[in-house]
Amino acid sequence: MGFQLTGKTILVASVLTLTTSSQGLLTTASKSNGSYRYNFATVPLLAEILKLLISSMLLQRQKHTSPEAARVTRHWRTAVLFLVPSIIYWLHNNVQFVTLKYVDPATYQIMGNLKIVTTGLLLWICLKRQLSLLQWLALALLMIGATVSQVKSGCDTASLLAAPVAGYLFGVLSAFLSAIAAVYTEWVMKRNLDSLYWQNMQLYSFGVAFNALGLTLGDVQQGFEKGVWVFTLFQGYDWVTVLVVANLAFSGLLVSWVMKFADSILKVYATSMAMLVTAVVSVIFFDLAPSLQLVLGILTASISLVLYYINPSVLVETRSSRLPK
Amino acid sequence: MGFQLTGKTILVASVLTLTTSSQGLLTTASKSNGSYRYNFATVPLLAEILKLLISSMLLQRQKHTSPEAARVTRHWRTAVLFLVPSIIYWLHNNVQFVTLKYVDPATYQIMGNLKIVTTGLLLWICLKRQLSLLQWLALALLMIGATVSQVKSGCDTASLLAAPVAGYLFGVLSAFLSAIAAVYTEWVMKRNLDSLYWQNMQLYSFGVAFNALGLTLGDVQQGFEKGVWVFTLFQGYDWVTVLVVANLAFSGLLVSWVMKFADSILKVYATSMAMLVTAVVSVIFFDLAPSLQLVLGILTASISLVLYYINPSVLVETRSSRLPK
Repeated sequence: MGFQLTGKTILVASVLTLTTSSQGLLTTASKSNGSYRYNFATVPLLAEILKLLISSMLLQRQKHTSPEAARVTRHWRTAVLFLVPSIIYWLHNNVQFVTLKYVDPATYQIMGNLKIVTTGLLLWICLKRQLSLLQWLALALLMIGATVSQVKSGCDTASLLAAPVAGYLFGVLSAFLSAIAAVYTEWVMKRNLDSLYWQNMQLYSFGVAFNALGLTLGDVQQGFEKGVWVFTLFQGYDWVTVLVVANLAFSGLLVSWVMKFADSILKVYATSMAMLVTAVVSVIFFDLAPSLQLVLGILTASISLVLYYINPSVLVETRSSRLPK
Repeated sequence: MGFQLTGKTILVASVLTLTTSSQGLLTTASKSNGSYRYNFATVPLLAEILKLLISSMLLQRQKHTSPEAARVTRHWRTAVLFLVPSIIYWLHNNVQFVTLKYVDPATYQIMGNLKIVTTGLLLWICLKRQLSLLQWLALALLMIGATVSQVKSGCDTASLLAAPVAGYLFGVLSAFLSAIAAVYTEWVMKRNLDSLYWQNMQLYSFGVAFNALGLTLGDVQQGFEKGVWVFTLFQGYDWVTVLVVANLAFSGLLVSWVMKFADSILKVYATSMAMLVTAVVSVIFFDLAPSLQLVLGILTASISLVLYYINPSVLVETRSSRLPK
C-alpha cells in the first residue's frame, strides 16, 4: 500500500470526509434566496491565504518542537514544482466549463466518478504503485456505488448514455486532470523529506497568486464595473461565509497531510464517502424519503472500502480456520 | 467450496443461465395479445412429466453404460424425503400470493433478491458450509447488483422503502422459503451416492403428483366450469408453448445437476445472471435505450462473480509478485 493504515490515518481520513461533506452543506447554507450575496471567487483565495498563514505558523512551531523534522529546501527548482498543481486546477476549471456546454450538471457529476479509476491508473502508470486485482475491483465498486447513489429517481437517467461524444471526451479529460493534480501533488509532497508545512507554504503561495490573478482577470473582463476585488473582498460576508472559508482551508490542510503521509486513493475514498454523507444528511435535514439508490450506493461503497483496506488474509479465511482447533 | 469449479460445472451453469433467461422471454412470447390462450398451470405439470420421462431414460442408459454409478436405494424412508421440496414450493406459492396483497409486483421482485443472502445463511447454518468474508461480501454485491438493475427509472422507487411491515415480513418469509427449498434439495441430492437420475425420478414423481393435485383442486374450486383438466390439457397449445415446457424441463434437469455436483450458490448466480441477460436481450429486442442502472447492475454482479469464484491468491497478489524476478 505504500503507507501504514494507522489510527491517525483513519482519523484524518474520517475528519476529511466530514469537512468535505460539510463544505457542500455550508456553501448551500451561505446562499440567500438561492444566490450568493458575496463574490464566490473570493472564497478559494481567502482559504489559500488562511492555509498559508496556518502552515507558516505550524512551521515556526515545528522549528522549536522538533527541529530535525522541520527540514526546509530553499531552491527555485524545488519551489517551481509547486506551481504545477495551480496550473492543472486552472486547466481543470476551464475543461469543466467547456464540458458543461455538452452535458447537464447531473451527468457531469456522474462522469466525475471516473476520477476514482483514473487516479488508480495514474498512480500505477506514473508512480509505479502496485494494486492487486482485489483493489482494482474495489475501486470499480466505489465508482459504481457513487454513480448508483447519484442516479436520480427521475425519468431522465438515460441522458448519460446518450450524451454527445464531445461530452464524453471532455468528461474523461476532466477526470484525468483531477487525477493528474492528485497524483502529481502526492509525488511532489513525497519526493523529499522537507517539512509538510514548508511544502504547503510553497504550494499555497502559488495558490494565492493564481486566485488573485483570476480575480483580477475577472475584474478586467467586466471592465471594473463592480470595482477592484481587493476593496470589495469581504462584501456580503456573514459568519456562514467565514465558516465556508475556514472549512475549505481546513479540508485543504487535511488533503495535504493525506498526500504526504497516505495517498491519493485514500483522498478519493474520503471525498466519495463525503458525497454519500452529504446525501444522507440532506435526506435527514430536508425530511426527504431516502431513495433505494442511495441505500444501495452506500452499501456498495462500504463494501468497496472493506475490500480495499482490510487485510486480505481476514477476507479469505473461512470461519473454521479462525477458530482454535 | 465443497466442489471443484471445473469446465463442466461452468458449462452447466452457463447453459442454466441461458435457459433460465429464455424461460421469461419464451413465456412472454407464448402470450397472444397479452394473455395466455392456454391454461398456464399445465406448463409445470407437463415439464415435471417430461423431466420424469427423461430421467427414467437416462437411468436406463446409465445402468448399461456405467452400472457402478447407477446406484439405486429403494426405501420409503429415502423416497419420502423427496416429498419435502414439493411441499415447500406449494407453501412458497401461497406466501407469494399473500405478499402480493401488500406490495406491488416490482417491489416483490426486488425483495426476491434477498434469497441470494438467505441461501448463503441457510447453507452456513444448516449444511455447515464455510464461506469466507470475501464470499459473503460477494453475495451481498450480487444482491445489490440485481436490485440496482431492477430499480425502475420511473418516479415510484420509494415504494420499497415505504411498504407496509406485513409486506416486508412476507417478503422475507418468501425469500427464506426459496432458500430452504434450494438448500434442502442440495442436501437430499448429496446425502447419498444414488444415481442423480434415480433421485430425479423420485423428486419429479412428487412434482407430477402435486401439480396434478393442484390442477384438480383448481377445477373443483371453479365447479368444473372449464371441464376436467385431463381432457383439456393441450388446449390452446402451439409450438411456442411446447418450447416453454421443454425449456422449463431442461432448466429443471440442469438445476438438479447443479445441486448434486455443485451447490445452491452456483444456482443463485446462474438465476441472477439470467435476470440480467433477460434485461439485456429485452433492450436489444424491443429497441429500448439501455438504462444506466442496468449497466451498473451488470458490472456489480460481474465483480461479485469474480470475487466469489476466483482463486483468492490471484485476487490478492500485486503485479510485481506475478512477474518473474
